[in-house]
Amino acid sequence: MYYNCEQSMAQFSTLSEFEAILAQAPETDAKARQGAEARNGQLTKPPGALGRLEDLAIWYAGWRGTDRPVLEAPQIVVFAGNHGVCAQGVSAFPPEVTVQMVANFEHGGAAINQLAKAFGAKMDVHALELDRPTADFTKEAAMSEADCVAALQTGWDAVDSSADLLVTGEMGIGNTTAGAALGAALFGGAGADWVGRGTGVDDAGLANKARVVDEGLALHAARAPLEVLRCLGGRELAAMAGAIAAARAYRIPVILDGFICTAAASVLEKSRAGALDHCVAGHLSAEGAHGKMLDALGKEPLLSLGLRLGEGSGGAAAIGVLKAAVACHSGMATFAEAGVSDG
Amino acid sequence: MYYNCEQSMAQFSTLSEFEAILAQAPETDAKARQGAEARNGQLTKPPGALGRLEDLAIWYAGWRGTDRPVLEAPQIVVFAGNHGVCAQGVSAFPPEVTVQMVANFEHGGAAINQLAKAFGAKMDVHALELDRPTADFTKEAAMSEADCVAALQTGWDAVDSSADLLVTGEMGIGNTTAGAALGAALFGGAGADWVGRGTGVDDAGLANKARVVDEGLALHAARAPLEVLRCLGGRELAAMAGAIAAARAYRIPVILDGFICTAAASVLEKSRAGALDHCVAGHLSAEGAHGKMLDALGKEPLLSLGLRLGEGSGGAAAIGVLKAAVACHSGMATFAEAGVSDG
Repeated sequence: MYYNCEQSMAQFSTLSEFEAILAQAPETDAKARQGAEARNGQLTKPPGALGRLEDLAIWYAGWRGTDRPVLEAPQIVVFAGNHGVCAQGVSAFPPEVTVQMVANFEHGGAAINQLAKAFGAKMDVHALELDRPTADFTKEAAMSEADCVAALQTGWDAVDSSADLLVTGEMGIGNTTAGAALGAALFGGAGADWVGRGTGVDDAGLANKARVVDEGLALHAARAPLEVLRCLGGRELAAMAGAIAAARAYRIPVILDGFICTAAASVLEKSRAGALDHCVAGHLSAEGAHGKMLDALGKEPLLSLGLRLGEGSGGAAAIGVLKAAVACHSGMATFAEAGVSDG
Repeated sequence: MYYNCEQSMAQFSTLSEFEAILAQAPETDAKARQGAEARNGQLTKPPGALGRLEDLAIWYAGWRGTDRPVLEAPQIVVFAGNHGVCAQGVSAFPPEVTVQMVANFEHGGAAINQLAKAFGAKMDVHALELDRPTADFTKEAAMSEADCVAALQTGWDAVDSSADLLVTGEMGIGNTTAGAALGAALFGGAGADWVGRGTGVDDAGLANKARVVDEGLALHAARAPLEVLRCLGGRELAAMAGAIAAARAYRIPVILDGFICTAAASVLEKSRAGALDHCVAGHLSAEGAHGKMLDALGKEPLLSLGLRLGEGSGGAAAIGVLKAAVACHSGMATFAEAGVSDG
């Protein structure tokens, strides 16, 4: 294991080493937070009139370590992976769509490309060994430790340390089943409590997904959170977890996307309470149990627009809300500066 | 009355003439809407996976008259007015704050200035005879017909016909009381059903606002919607109504702001059912009865972040959501273009 606090670079070769790095994660800057709270109280508006935008700006200021932050370099990273569990017939789309959609990302034709452009975000795509799907988790562990660590490392390394906001997204036919399995294994309950319709399965497909998750839970019972990720997750989920952990090391705030991203992030929170304090929930997905998962994490979504696409789309759509919050906080005049009576 | 359908210019000298113009308002372009629906079905995503963003894009396409619209020239117009009803002690802030905040808008220091910058919107401010407040509506009609018509005309003329989106905002110490009076007069109920804490009045202040609204309702009972606006509203409310009507004539979609903007817009809907079909609700305000008013209009808010500032801030904060919707709709590749299997 190599961890350099100054540069926030990390190399890890086992899940235990990754867990040890999580334990060293920095906390919010209390002084910057207090400074931002004080500034917020002086801005030309009635107290609290910007509602949640005020809380968001103060939260963002704490993580950026300044009472008057900017948000001008958001990064979106999309990870793609393939899933052996597709052999169980869990998706309405065939697995080859994963690689087709990666090409679509690379050519700028997907929803996430348009959202990145609309909000001025840099976007990177990482395809994770698409020709080598994870194993079918109803038969064996989805990944070896080496595979899981490699995916975590890819995620970590994908984060640009000069970004000031991160959104992680995913593409992987079959990965709502992996997400549901993570939800059940991390938070309790059975497959039926956590599966949803994904890209659009019918009632029989939904029941099949629940059965598949239940079989995975039975085979890989009672594991530590990172072992849950290895046995039931997928490469793109591990990569998102790695990226979110890296963002914490760099003090880059994160907007979580929907169900699968939140499931991956939950692995971190279950490994170390508070590991997602630098994250806000971008939206409430229409996918199955996302709301229940956010409740378990104590995260209130910024948007609730019925999205269920993945790719980071719900997180990206919320960039505008956070930009609005930071712009108001850092750009507004104080009562004294503007010569406005403060009531 | 002068109304030129080609140029969508309008001059009106009475409330009846304004009402006649409302009756000539254009409807959505059914062909463009259908084209947008067809395009939406071909985009590289599972059907419905962008949730409400899909509905928004199709709605926007219909009003813009093209199946693949752009959103690149939003306009925010803020109107300011003063209210005689402030003599009844209805606000936590003194009336001189209205003119101070107008100066703040002009110097770029208010929340709405930062939001306009963040979302690339042009912003204009119109101060409406701030040294001549409306009359105290507990004593007499807030405005003469000439005053009300002049404010409607100012609003109409403030809209840039080349804009592709409009947000109307307001500033006016005392105007949540006027908004509550409009809500009660247009939708029924008593003052207590419609008042809220505005910039921050205490329980006694809230009760006082309810009394003031009840006195206004008693004095100006059972009026037609535009008469309600004249008797209980204010210049900035009339100007917002005029601007929203002008946007309809120009086929410019509108994002409504919070309680006061929605109250002003409600005058149009009550004058002519469907008059707000080109409008979407930007957010759910924390102010008192905004949710009830939106329910009555059948409008579901895009954001719910506890804002209660006015200025157009909640409408402006939602520009990002609409930009996201339009960017995805018009920029995404189709299944055929991207060579992606469509399930």
